Amino acid sequence: MLNFKILTTSGNARSGIIKLNNFFVKTPIFMPVGTYGSVKAISPLELIEMKYNIILNNSFHLWMRPGLDVISKFGGLHKFINWNRLILTDSGGFQVFSLSKRNKITEKGIYFFSPINGDKLFLSPEISMKIQKILNSDIVMQLDECTPYKIYNRILSENEVENSMKMSLRWAQRSKEEFYKINNKNSLFCIVQGGMFKNLRDESLEKLKEIGFDGFAIGGLSVGEPKKKMIKILQYIGPKLPIDKPHYLMGAGTPEDIIMAVSNGIDMFDCIIPTRNARNGLLFTNFGNIKIKNARYKFDKNPLDYSCNCYTCKNFSRSYLHYLHRKGEILGSRLNTIHNLYYYFQLMRKIRLSINNNIFEKFVKDFCENRKYENKF
Amino acid sequence: MLNFKILTTSGNARSGIIKLNNFFVKTPIFMPVGTYGSVKAISPLELIEMKYNIILNNSFHLWMRPGLDVISKFGGLHKFINWNRLILTDSGGFQVFSLSKRNKITEKGIYFFSPINGDKLFLSPEISMKIQKILNSDIVMQLDECTPYKIYNRILSENEVENSMKMSLRWAQRSKEEFYKINNKNSLFCIVQGGMFKNLRDESLEKLKEIGFDGFAIGGLSVGEPKKKMIKILQYIGPKLPIDKPHYLMGAGTPEDIIMAVSNGIDMFDCIIPTRNARNGLLFTNFGNIKIKNARYKFDKNPLDYSCNCYTCKNFSRSYLHYLHRKGEILGSRLNTIHNLYYYFQLMRKIRLSINNNIFEKFVKDFCENRKYENKF
Repeated sequence: MLNFKILTTSGNARSGIIKLNNFFVKTPIFMPVGTYGSVKAISPLELIEMKYNIILNNSFHLWMRPGLDVISKFGGLHKFINWNRLILTDSGGFQVFSLSKRNKITEKGIYFFSPINGDKLFLSPEISMKIQKILNSDIVMQLDECTPYKIYNRILSENEVENSMKMSLRWAQRSKEEFYKINNKNSLFCIVQGGMFKNLRDESLEKLKEIGFDGFAIGGLSVGEPKKKMIKILQYIGPKLPIDKPHYLMGAGTPEDIIMAVSNGIDMFDCIIPTRNARNGLLFTNFGNIKIKNARYKFDKNPLDYSCNCYTCKNFSRSYLHYLHRKGEILGSRLNTIHNLYYYFQLMRKIRLSINNNIFEKFVKDFCENRKYENKF
Repeated sequence: MLNFKILTTSGNARSGIIKLNNFFVKTPIFMPVGTYGSVKAISPLELIEMKYNIILNNSFHLWMRPGLDVISKFGGLHKFINWNRLILTDSGGFQVFSLSKRNKITEKGIYFFSPINGDKLFLSPEISMKIQKILNSDIVMQLDECTPYKIYNRILSENEVENSMKMSLRWAQRSKEEFYKINNKNSLFCIVQGGMFKNLRDESLEKLKEIGFDGFAIGGLSVGEPKKKMIKILQYIGPKLPIDKPHYLMGAGTPEDIIMAVSNGIDMFDCIIPTRNARNGLLFTNFGNIKIKNARYKFDKNPLDYSCNCYTCKNFSRSYLHYLHRKGEILGSRLNTIHNLYYYFQLMRKIRLSINNNIFEKFVKDFCENRKYENKF
């Protein structure tokens, strides 16, 4: 049973606390992504040391491998991956759309071919709920269709977006019914769709509120649309989400994206950016980003960021990280990932503190000022 | 200044203690290999948690990259890689022989082409000493020629082996002279050569004793000769090494090799086997080896080894390790490496304890009995 309480607000930004299955999660929160049941390069112990207590895992990948037979033998994902804190899983739909070349979407569900062995497979709201029950996710996501912005370089019409959004609504209803039917005692989030159309976003949100969920996510953003349109929709729908439920922006984002979204009422985030960028040698600091492979770091005895207290910054120089990255040493990926995830946790902590102390606006201004030398990626 | 004291002996096996630069190393000891200045997949903190306090780094690799200019800026390797315990470095000679396609060995030294950029380079006893001074290794190895067993499938004649061994002796003398000339306050080890010829091994050892070194290594073994010959030479020369100096068998080996060598008076070991095998999914346990990729482990909820107290065995199942290995997840390499290095440390600890308690022979018997199901590799 998910319990959510707002502590303070600052404009549309909210600082709150989620209580779920004996854990407390302070919001706004960032959830590291552990696609295959491991946050890449990082151990569960390191995540705990950084004070993370919720991660995201991908249902689709885990369904494919190791498979539900393995995970059910462990009574769920927590024991299999040795993570006894909270887990949010997605529905699997997004990966079916993006990873399986041939898929067919019907009212009933999605037919597709396994990217592992070509088997014909089927995913429906009911099946997604069953998968997430076996995974024993603390937060289950409804199955939805992530409405694209363009298909074959053609922007979708309002009618097309409406049809997609309405099917997602029916899938939301079916997800909820199945969730209760199989007696899942965890929590279920819905996903607001409607593309770039405010009226459709409104309609989606209203219906989802009627059905009733433990949390509200915004989907169908960052799907190829111009950034301005994305921000417009977020500014429009973010503040309209039910005040007493957690708001989750799926798949976002850069530090700047997160701050913008928090300003518009978002409480929860997940993104591969800190972990993937770390492995690629792009490191976040309070004073701009660092591309560690650059020759300028070859002799640099400084830590990545003097103001950072992570294991990497406390013990290693840019010179050594530069060297490890160039040599492709695993330790380089590890130290970089520790730094970026630490950075993200501290970013969220500072956001929470600034909201609690009613200085969020000033924080945003200072933050952007300090990071203005950022290398865009 | 290296200080070595024997605590107990059991037959030819010795338990002792090395005191060097404010650290104590209990022997027999295994030194993890950190080729590029990082023990692959492992952080310095994890090594310390496993109680390792000496590692081996490769001079040649570090000379090539990041280069001596970088390392000298840090005042040596310890600060560059953040390892404040002991470091032994090899002379660089072995890699020049094995990694550079074209090299020319002369009395003066070895001419070769850089594997990085094709530059013409030169390594001599004097240059090796200078490199290891810059690295600030606690234990410096003389430059020698690692006499091969065969060249182009032809076994070397006694005369050829003798010439090679005698040049290594002259290089030992030059190494020592240079070591003192550049005022190196650390310790210098020599390397006994002589191939499969007992008389040549004797001659090498006698001359090296005359020159005088802080420790004695055995080189030119495991270079392609039949295992029986290797054991014969080790049994012959191991017990003859100076009783009051540490004895080091370079590049060995499997747990079984190590036990055999300890029985013949060896005190120090280094080998890539535990780390490389870990990344390849071959794991050592007290009850035989495990190839974690095997399908039989897919559903196996047991730890690798119930009798092991490492982080991996205390927290993760064979099933999860099997899955991580198959997915090529970095965490798999990490957890496997932690286990194997922990296993090796515990192996050495048990060897020491059994010598101290005068039950070494019984230990060897029980050990081999328990591991008889080992999959040979």
